Amino acid sequence: MKVFKIPEATVMRLSVYSRYLYQLGREGVETVSSGDIAKGVGVSSAQVRKDLAYFGEFGTRGVGYKVEELYNHIIKILGLDQQWNVMIVGAGKLGSALALYQGFAERGFNITTVLDVDENIIGTKLGNIEVEPLEVLETRVKERNITIGVVAVPASAAQDVTDQLIKAGVKAILNFSPRVLKVPREVVLRNVDLSVNLEVLSFNLVFNS
Amino acid sequence: MKVFKIPEATVMRLSVYSRYLYQLGREGVETVSSGDIAKGVGVSSAQVRKDLAYFGEFGTRGVGYKVEELYNHIIKILGLDQQWNVMIVGAGKLGSALALYQGFAERGFNITTVLDVDENIIGTKLGNIEVEPLEVLETRVKERNITIGVVAVPASAAQDVTDQLIKAGVKAILNFSPRVLKVPREVVLRNVDLSVNLEVLSFNLVFNS
Repeated sequence: MKVFKIPEATVMRLSVYSRYLYQLGREGVETVSSGDIAKGVGVSSAQVRKDLAYFGEFGTRGVGYKVEELYNHIIKILGLDQQWNVMIVGAGKLGSALALYQGFAERGFNITTVLDVDENIIGTKLGNIEVEPLEVLETRVKERNITIGVVAVPASAAQDVTDQLIKAGVKAILNFSPRVLKVPREVVLRNVDLSVNLEVLSFNLVFNS
Repeated sequence: MKVFKIPEATVMRLSVYSRYLYQLGREGVETVSSGDIAKGVGVSSAQVRKDLAYFGEFGTRGVGYKVEELYNHIIKILGLDQQWNVMIVGAGKLGSALALYQGFAERGFNITTVLDVDENIIGTKLGNIEVEPLEVLETRVKERNITIGVVAVPASAAQDVTDQLIKAGVKAILNFSPRVLKVPREVVLRNVDLSVNLEVLSFNLVFNS
């Protein structure tokens, strides 16, 4: 259904809107205006309308949006009306923080498997998950129907782990290593560089002062 | 020097370019074209030229950019030609992963202080840093000249911690909690929601298939 390109910033805001709508739904709110959403999440109402317009007409003029309907629609757009099985490779500080992060399961991401090469870590438990050796990567991807691989290994191992994940059948990679990874065109890649976030702050501290 | 608004995506790409230029510099490469940078980091060369054009003319037509000069310029733009002192509040799995993350110091971010409220965590060490109680927040911000506060506490405590950081004199907040925070206009706020990253993947898995 690749019709036109949706900016990534829009996708990220949809994710934020959906959380806000979820909260409103739980509070019993039935309809909401673009202005309310804007105020609730801290963007302009023009931006909210523009973001939602990518996916067709939702609202009723003067009435606004039905909270539940809009929520369900966004969840579907984000692919969160289904479960995604996730493997984390690397059970260091970051990998284990990710494995234990409650927010993933709430949004339909099942961390099913965590792998590492360190014999002191293999066999330990992160919540309900026992860390397993890297050798079982391919077997686990196949038997657990894993679509998303999270790369939380040192830079030097990142490309090799990524190649193994893709060879095993993973369709999307979330890369936390500082290395630029090569993946085939059909694989979805997203890089999360934690220092970039601090650099956006320092840029703004300097630039806006 | 707030002349015009630089898109955040540009700032994030500048950060990526700077790492690539650093790598080239270490390999002894002296000049580089926008096409080389583009290929090295995986964006279009038109995008590279557009991003760099925000900050004036750098390159020489037909020759390209001087690696060291461009690197130094970007580092300055990003505010990385100075040191920033950082406090992390929350020494759970995520906070401690951040405290131990080597990438921050490499880019000029000194994690000087880590605080928590849990008596089992206070007094333990993360690398060279001893976790201290939340009560010392204001004292430490002042005596250690801390500009950036990292919020890695549960959602329920996030706004309170943020208020304390700002009251103590912090100028920028990096928020890892899933809560929408309110900060005064002059404080720089950046939210890092780890699940959003997975949602961008699931969106792409559904939308591009």
